[in-house]
Amino acid sequence: MSVLVVGSTALDSIKTPKAENPRLLGGSASHAAVAASFFAPVKLVGVVGDDFPRPYVQLYERHGIDLAGLQRVTGQTFHWAGEYEVNMNNRRTLTTELGVFADFNPVLPDAYRRTPYVLLANIAPSLQSHVLDQMQRPRFVIADTMDLWLNIALDDLLELLKRVDALVLNDSEARQLTGEDNVVVAARRIHQLGPRYVIVKKGEHGSLLSGPEGRFICPAYPLEKVVDPTGAGDSFVGGLIGCLATARGSVEKALRRGMVHGSVVASFCCEGFGLKRTTKVTRDEIEDRVARLQAMARI
Amino acid sequence: MSVLVVGSTALDSIKTPKAENPRLLGGSASHAAVAASFFAPVKLVGVVGDDFPRPYVQLYERHGIDLAGLQRVTGQTFHWAGEYEVNMNNRRTLTTELGVFADFNPVLPDAYRRTPYVLLANIAPSLQSHVLDQMQRPRFVIADTMDLWLNIALDDLLELLKRVDALVLNDSEARQLTGEDNVVVAARRIHQLGPRYVIVKKGEHGSLLSGPEGRFICPAYPLEKVVDPTGAGDSFVGGLIGCLATARGSVEKALRRGMVHGSVVASFCCEGFGLKRTTKVTRDEIEDRVARLQAMARI
Repeated sequence: MSVLVVGSTALDSIKTPKAENPRLLGGSASHAAVAASFFAPVKLVGVVGDDFPRPYVQLYERHGIDLAGLQRVTGQTFHWAGEYEVNMNNRRTLTTELGVFADFNPVLPDAYRRTPYVLLANIAPSLQSHVLDQMQRPRFVIADTMDLWLNIALDDLLELLKRVDALVLNDSEARQLTGEDNVVVAARRIHQLGPRYVIVKKGEHGSLLSGPEGRFICPAYPLEKVVDPTGAGDSFVGGLIGCLATARGSVEKALRRGMVHGSVVASFCCEGFGLKRTTKVTRDEIEDRVARLQAMARI
Repeated sequence: MSVLVVGSTALDSIKTPKAENPRLLGGSASHAAVAASFFAPVKLVGVVGDDFPRPYVQLYERHGIDLAGLQRVTGQTFHWAGEYEVNMNNRRTLTTELGVFADFNPVLPDAYRRTPYVLLANIAPSLQSHVLDQMQRPRFVIADTMDLWLNIALDDLLELLKRVDALVLNDSEARQLTGEDNVVVAARRIHQLGPRYVIVKKGEHGSLLSGPEGRFICPAYPLEKVVDPTGAGDSFVGGLIGCLATARGSVEKALRRGMVHGSVVASFCCEGFGLKRTTKVTRDEIEDRVARLQAMARI
């Protein structure tokens, strides 16, 4: 079954202690859509300006991503520039130029409205809700978010949470949202806000699923070298929902399998700047790394 | 088969934001010996002063711990006092009074010298080596350490590392020892210093085994409440070697199983001050939690 992905489509200028890469293809929807495309057909919803490079459109197309929902308007594409410190864990934003993204109003083509799996990748929660308003009884909805929305759009986010099946957020965001320092307790509290499933991302330490059937501790694939972690979280959730859309059996089992696959796609994402490594990966390489990760986590 | 445990035997005064507990039974050897005793017979090597409370001796005895190697000398027992911050991750030392520990010279009773499994719990690496000098062809030797010895006794530690099968240390210590920020690479580098097996502890994020057969990602048991993490690392390595001493099959498989059991004993340790919770646990409760952890980690 297919997956609808809405989020940001951006140009990322990424500086690390070792290299500088201007105007890479980035944004939450780009990373998530490419990650999901390894497993299921993807429909993209986003907006780009008239400066958006043609090769990036072709990149989406090579991954079979449906672009009927990608608006192309006059103006500049959303541009983000950031710099990582030596240990690659801390980053600071150098520039945020919203461009055409400032007036983004996601309008779904008719053919998109019955997509069974919906990923509301990281954008303003009011836009995420607006997309849900246009959907016809989706089977499973996952929302991702970030600290920015907890700070400036908390009420919108709380409204959204009543309408989603799963929320994905990182550990510090889970703490901020609940005021609870213990991540296990924080995940439990978030259920009370709406989502039946809560997935807490912990970067290199993996992720934790909390749901009605219990918890799942998902390991991260141990990497010897991280080139650029930008988009790793988006790749994780993209791989997760793509895998979920093709799964049979119980939701909980499918989520476990999806998280492991998402974790592996995220590991590839970290091995190159922007989408450079992810777009070169094959499904076989993903399954090979999944098998290795399973072997490493086998008790 | 039995386990020899050498390390510190101390009185710990522990302050948290919620409570204060003076002169609890503590020290690396106490935590490790009690943890190991759930799985195998334990022989303790340590030193206490004439102020060491009789109930603490009885506590060791209730766990069937052989005390022939516990020296009782005139003077004060090693006393450590520390305080935890609200999130229980940061602690600061308030007092360190070495007492009789300052002149500790571990001398092994004859009956100890052929013990097949040896845990060199956290003490000065020169003392750890001195214990090894007295052993007759042990089957498997694990050494634990701490940042203090990296700072003041690095040469002694490097000498020791050539003689042990496994080194256990936490992630920041692995980074410090190798000058390598990536923990996976750091573990690999430590093999070159001697140990065939390297176990990196990551607190609430679990631990990582690196060995000739590959890696094992060991999850931590997710706790909703941490009362006092003092001794959790010692409990982990104690449970690990106790479990290892009773295992059949390959070393690597036994280490995986041992790490999971150690992880569970450590989780109980965190649920009470000092050894209060650990000493109340039954083997059945440990196996029950191991089964839960296995279910949570199953992909």
